Amino acid sequence: MDLLVEKAIKGDRLSLSRLLSSIENNSAGSQQALDALFPLAGNAHIIGVTGSPGTGKSSLVNRIALEYRKRRQTVAIIAVDPSSPFSGGAILGDRIRMKELSGDTGVFIRSVASRGSLGGLSISTAQISSVFDAAGYDKILIETVGAGQSEVEIAGLAHTTLVVEAPGMGDDIQAIKAGILEIADILVINKADREGADQTELALRTMLELDHPKPKIFHHALLMDVVPLPDQQPDESLWIPPIVKTIATNGTNVEELTNRIEIHRQYLLNTGFWARRDSERILHELETSIKQQLFQGFISGIEPSDLLDVVQKIQQRTLSPHNATQILINRP
Amino acid sequence: MDLLVEKAIKGDRLSLSRLLSSIENNSAGSQQALDALFPLAGNAHIIGVTGSPGTGKSSLVNRIALEYRKRRQTVAIIAVDPSSPFSGGAILGDRIRMKELSGDTGVFIRSVASRGSLGGLSISTAQISSVFDAAGYDKILIETVGAGQSEVEIAGLAHTTLVVEAPGMGDDIQAIKAGILEIADILVINKADREGADQTELALRTMLELDHPKPKIFHHALLMDVVPLPDQQPDESLWIPPIVKTIATNGTNVEELTNRIEIHRQYLLNTGFWARRDSERILHELETSIKQQLFQGFISGIEPSDLLDVVQKIQQRTLSPHNATQILINRP
Repeated sequence: MDLLVEKAIKGDRLSLSRLLSSIENNSAGSQQALDALFPLAGNAHIIGVTGSPGTGKSSLVNRIALEYRKRRQTVAIIAVDPSSPFSGGAILGDRIRMKELSGDTGVFIRSVASRGSLGGLSISTAQISSVFDAAGYDKILIETVGAGQSEVEIAGLAHTTLVVEAPGMGDDIQAIKAGILEIADILVINKADREGADQTELALRTMLELDHPKPKIFHHALLMDVVPLPDQQPDESLWIPPIVKTIATNGTNVEELTNRIEIHRQYLLNTGFWARRDSERILHELETSIKQQLFQGFISGIEPSDLLDVVQKIQQRTLSPHNATQILINRP
Repeated sequence: MDLLVEKAIKGDRLSLSRLLSSIENNSAGSQQALDALFPLAGNAHIIGVTGSPGTGKSSLVNRIALEYRKRRQTVAIIAVDPSSPFSGGAILGDRIRMKELSGDTGVFIRSVASRGSLGGLSISTAQISSVFDAAGYDKILIETVGAGQSEVEIAGLAHTTLVVEAPGMGDDIQAIKAGILEIADILVINKADREGADQTELALRTMLELDHPKPKIFHHALLMDVVPLPDQQPDESLWIPPIVKTIATNGTNVEELTNRIEIHRQYLLNTGFWARRDSERILHELETSIKQQLFQGFISGIEPSDLLDVVQKIQQRTLSPHNATQILINRP
């Protein structure tokens, strides 16, 4: 595993691929590999791209990747493949069609399984992203279907989140999904040559005007109460998501979109949000890890019969879960 | 607080209302109140109703409530009010319009704040539901906007989940949100007198045919590995979500929809899923409670300077979160 990590960092694609597989499968030694890679990560710009099926996300991601390659940036693409039969095929199809990317050693494309289309990103998405980060990729594009929990999670993982819409999918304020302004750093209207693009733009603009932009907080780690976070700028420096119209199939306006992504990156760096988001994410990861370890220690220390006894009392509703917790934890 | 609980159980509406407020505000004594109510709960049929803004969920919930009143069932309605300015007003408006419900002592309507339109249901939604359950309400209708995490959470909380669609909101398979089949027990096409209702129905039917129904598992509590759960029937007894067309504004087909909800309830009871879902939920609640207590104990036992030291090392990327956890937990 040590050799695999060493070769992967040096740019050996086969080693990187094998390393990613062992992390996805949680093979022996993968936690150690992640620990070894941790000091090298923290430099990549993570860009989340989310939207409903049919909006042309995959093509757009390919085009953004091409644009970054023109700018001499290396790009990793993580396609979170939902188990849903409706979009899985399309993602793969788009990948195959994009021949410009396939021979390029500055691009690495990886599909990861999601925990089901509503279950959100798998833990391995964050881990795979950190491997690409440690391996020195400049830009990490994470593509995910806009459904359920994965939307919230992508916004927590990415520095810059693009929400992709398309005309003709129910383009009034009522139909555009509640909450997208909470996660979108940039709103994209793809397939902008289709009828109704102006209507979609109007609906998005109205939403932006009605809503008051607020600073985004995705990780409410309890540890934040104990550990001070880096300062951030006051509310005046709030980011208002720009709306960019694109046609991914022929690349129209993808250069402009990429410029906007870079402006957002600069905004995050200037305001201190970049450092703050990283700290929030790390504290959240630490907290999750501590909770898991504590719980595993608790489970391995308890007599199954004692636990079963308590659970049965809860199921018979003679003991509440809260009271049961007190009993189990204060057990000698 | 004891008196409040006692009076609330006996049907005093003002006491019930005050009890719900103190639980929502997490006031002193509210945990004790929940513990006292726990033995009385476990009998209500919890029905989740979710869908995009503009589908007419609120009117539908009102009509279902009316139908259940005809059947001499008591009904509690929990409207999870997102902070989004687009639907908050509409929910309230519908409530006011529904005069038939307002004088009825067999109905109790309560709005609760969500944690933001993407943040999911607040903990208090489950707690308020259990108070209504303990207070003897037969049916608990929980209405929530279909966005982000709240969709997944409603399906975990409810026995029966209705997903509401409406014609003309992008009615092809691509536009209908991925994952709704994973949570829907019943698919409702509301506003069925509008143009495009047949098209919506066709799209939903195609989705149902393409997808293989699978048993729903929402709570992956680790405790399930330790504690055996009640048996459930094999896969043959899988439920295929029926599609019901309604017009909530004039009540068309709401009787049929309510019949379907009751058939689903009977299905859950017959197959053992009812008991299993309850057990899963209780184990999940116990696990969450244990993790929280363990973590709080950990936090209060640690020197802030020790924690800060470790966090700084993580932020400087000289120590991984995983290694930090080992150090913090094994500290003497």
